[in-house]
Amino acid sequence: MSKPSIGFCGLGAMGMGMATHLVKQGYSVTGFDVYQPSLDRFKAAGGTPSTSLAESAKDKPFYIVMVASAMQAQPALFDKDGIVNALPKGATLLLCSTVPSAYAKSVEKDLGEAGRGDIFFIDAPVSGGAGRAADGTLSIMAGASDAAMEKGKWLLEEMSASSKLFIVAGGVGAGSNMKMVHQVLAAIQILSLSEAYGFAARLGLNGKEVYNKVIESTGWSWMFENRSQRTLKEDYFPGASAVTIILKDTGIITSMSRSVGFPATLCAIAEQVYFSALDRGWGANDDAGLVRLWSSEPVTSIQNSLPAEDKEAKLQLVVDLLTGIHLVSAAESISLAKHVGIPLPQLYELACDAAGGSAMFRDAGEKMITILEGKDNDSGRILGEYVKKLRTAVDEAQAIKCPLYLGTGALNLLLQTGSDSSLASLLKYYSVR
Amino acid sequence: MSKPSIGFCGLGAMGMGMATHLVKQGYSVTGFDVYQPSLDRFKAAGGTPSTSLAESAKDKPFYIVMVASAMQAQPALFDKDGIVNALPKGATLLLCSTVPSAYAKSVEKDLGEAGRGDIFFIDAPVSGGAGRAADGTLSIMAGASDAAMEKGKWLLEEMSASSKLFIVAGGVGAGSNMKMVHQVLAAIQILSLSEAYGFAARLGLNGKEVYNKVIESTGWSWMFENRSQRTLKEDYFPGASAVTIILKDTGIITSMSRSVGFPATLCAIAEQVYFSALDRGWGANDDAGLVRLWSSEPVTSIQNSLPAEDKEAKLQLVVDLLTGIHLVSAAESISLAKHVGIPLPQLYELACDAAGGSAMFRDAGEKMITILEGKDNDSGRILGEYVKKLRTAVDEAQAIKCPLYLGTGALNLLLQTGSDSSLASLLKYYSVR
Repeated sequence: MSKPSIGFCGLGAMGMGMATHLVKQGYSVTGFDVYQPSLDRFKAAGGTPSTSLAESAKDKPFYIVMVASAMQAQPALFDKDGIVNALPKGATLLLCSTVPSAYAKSVEKDLGEAGRGDIFFIDAPVSGGAGRAADGTLSIMAGASDAAMEKGKWLLEEMSASSKLFIVAGGVGAGSNMKMVHQVLAAIQILSLSEAYGFAARLGLNGKEVYNKVIESTGWSWMFENRSQRTLKEDYFPGASAVTIILKDTGIITSMSRSVGFPATLCAIAEQVYFSALDRGWGANDDAGLVRLWSSEPVTSIQNSLPAEDKEAKLQLVVDLLTGIHLVSAAESISLAKHVGIPLPQLYELACDAAGGSAMFRDAGEKMITILEGKDNDSGRILGEYVKKLRTAVDEAQAIKCPLYLGTGALNLLLQTGSDSSLASLLKYYSVR
Repeated sequence: MSKPSIGFCGLGAMGMGMATHLVKQGYSVTGFDVYQPSLDRFKAAGGTPSTSLAESAKDKPFYIVMVASAMQAQPALFDKDGIVNALPKGATLLLCSTVPSAYAKSVEKDLGEAGRGDIFFIDAPVSGGAGRAADGTLSIMAGASDAAMEKGKWLLEEMSASSKLFIVAGGVGAGSNMKMVHQVLAAIQILSLSEAYGFAARLGLNGKEVYNKVIESTGWSWMFENRSQRTLKEDYFPGASAVTIILKDTGIITSMSRSVGFPATLCAIAEQVYFSALDRGWGANDDAGLVRLWSSEPVTSIQNSLPAEDKEAKLQLVVDLLTGIHLVSAAESISLAKHVGIPLPQLYELACDAAGGSAMFRDAGEKMITILEGKDNDSGRILGEYVKKLRTAVDEAQAIKCPLYLGTGALNLLLQTGSDSSLASLLKYYSVR
């Protein structure tokens, strides 16, 4: 039996990887993009390029949309010459873009109103970066009706690693909500690594020393390890992931949070700093370049002749800064998941090994979940040491007049737990009713 | 009987006003400064200039120190050729600089250890700006032993307005603590006015329209009215109050708060933005110039042709932003006062009519105090409208990608009160144990 043909819209960094992976697996893929060089690259990789949305969708039993935003997806899908009008009866449509869950739901509704209730629609945002997209080993968070999932699951499996396909209960919208709560971690951790490298630079530490120390420590995050490859080479122009991309995801989190009354405190702090980077004209630069808010010098060019003991003490401050921020980011993510009804163990399984992963999420996240699910009478009185260490880092930053947007924000959330110093008290801040 | 002679150290913007006011009142004042033009000005105003600390203190029964910081005060007081060694027996020493209360206490201790327990020492920081300093109508917050207060009260009265001398119970350190909790309001409100003008500029509003609207609204603050005189003229170089001055006061608040476990959340947000202004080389510029973080254009040059209704709606967003921030700043200030044991009604009386004053502090502060003092069973379920309005302002700012550091910080503190939406819930955040 021949493999079904697939239509694809959006050959950006992620989309190109996903589409060419499907070509490599032997599918006939017709790819649409507005940018001719991307079409040329796709053709060179064996795909069928198309400059017409309708043509890319005609006679395709399966279609994948991987554009940058809901604002791009809506006309691509629903314009007269768009995808939906051209899809054959009973086609399966995957929306893999990161969009607000309310938008994913609106697509389902608009399909019905357009008389295309026959289309099987799956809300399926992805995570993992361009490399895993090209390898077909993405993490995918999918929500859909049982019928649609039955139709499209094989295609989700083609693009994801075997243990990285998460079917989220709740239908269309649930996938996007899962992606959103995962992106809470990403939104905070992308800024935290620049804040950490910037603080380190001002302490006189070389970026490579910082890297070697952090990746073996409680301050580790997937984002730190990933972005460091660009930070250490100043590979920001354009790099691999623009500030505008994480800003878009952050905006989905904060606007959704505001609308449901959830205090996405660290995400909001990060968002204001991302806005300030836009003001500097850095929107199209890689987000790893945010370190330039702290240091105009490349972090790898910073030299010091600190005695080993002093250097170690300063490196530890950087680790403690990241550790404290990531601890609170775990609480913010897991609490928002609870607030919007995402299954917490599934988020834990997903995020431990995706772009939002961090040593602190892995180590403290499980305990947070047992507390939030009421399965544990131990309130987790473990914050004392973290508070003390983060406070010391903030003291040092203040002494050298170094801004720590997230570090001070995280510290205040930890301080408001008082002498109780428990995970339960931290989670209580986020447990609005 | 002839008036006693007075020594004075520190002829900056505030000190010059205070010292020349005393000259006008008929006192013989010997003023020390390291900056010759200030000495020249002081001489022209009838004072006796001195380039020697010891000479400025010799035979002076009363001495006033008004330098910029504890770091400047310590050597001026205790160096071999400094003030303390030169003062006559039984002299009265007033420290009017804004310093950590721990520093004021250390001066008392150091006097004893230097064998100068005979000196009557008063911890007496001031507020009100250079204009009121020159008029002798400052607000003064004084703490001292009864004996010292008896000696020096007349001099405090000479420099303050009749109802603006606040003798704070608790001895040396209490004056500085009162000043600190007052400065919580100043630290937040100085940034809030630039954030408001900057947001307004990006909404297309002219600065003069903003001024006229805000001063008649719930968004009014003393700082807004005062700084607007410079904002509207771009009078920042050097203007009247450098970024480094409010940054120093903010640092006293946040470091003291960290050390006692208090989450000075909005102050910490403001401090990071002040650090970022230092990074831009704006430390010596007037703090009103912080609006340049949002708009490189003068706010008075912004033109619009908005229909009256649209303009009014946008102006209201600016008012709502300030109102929300000032509401939370009142809670932060009053809660810190409770935390460090400052009498709350005295803070209220002081701050309503000093540089920290705001419409929201005046309107909501009294209720907050009755709740914190447990004199009121009504939890003040009044936050709903404020949350709604501030949320709308933040929504609009997000849409135009305008950073609102304090606006988003205040909103999250309001959101965490949940559907309860009460002042009690807001105060609970700050009521760490």
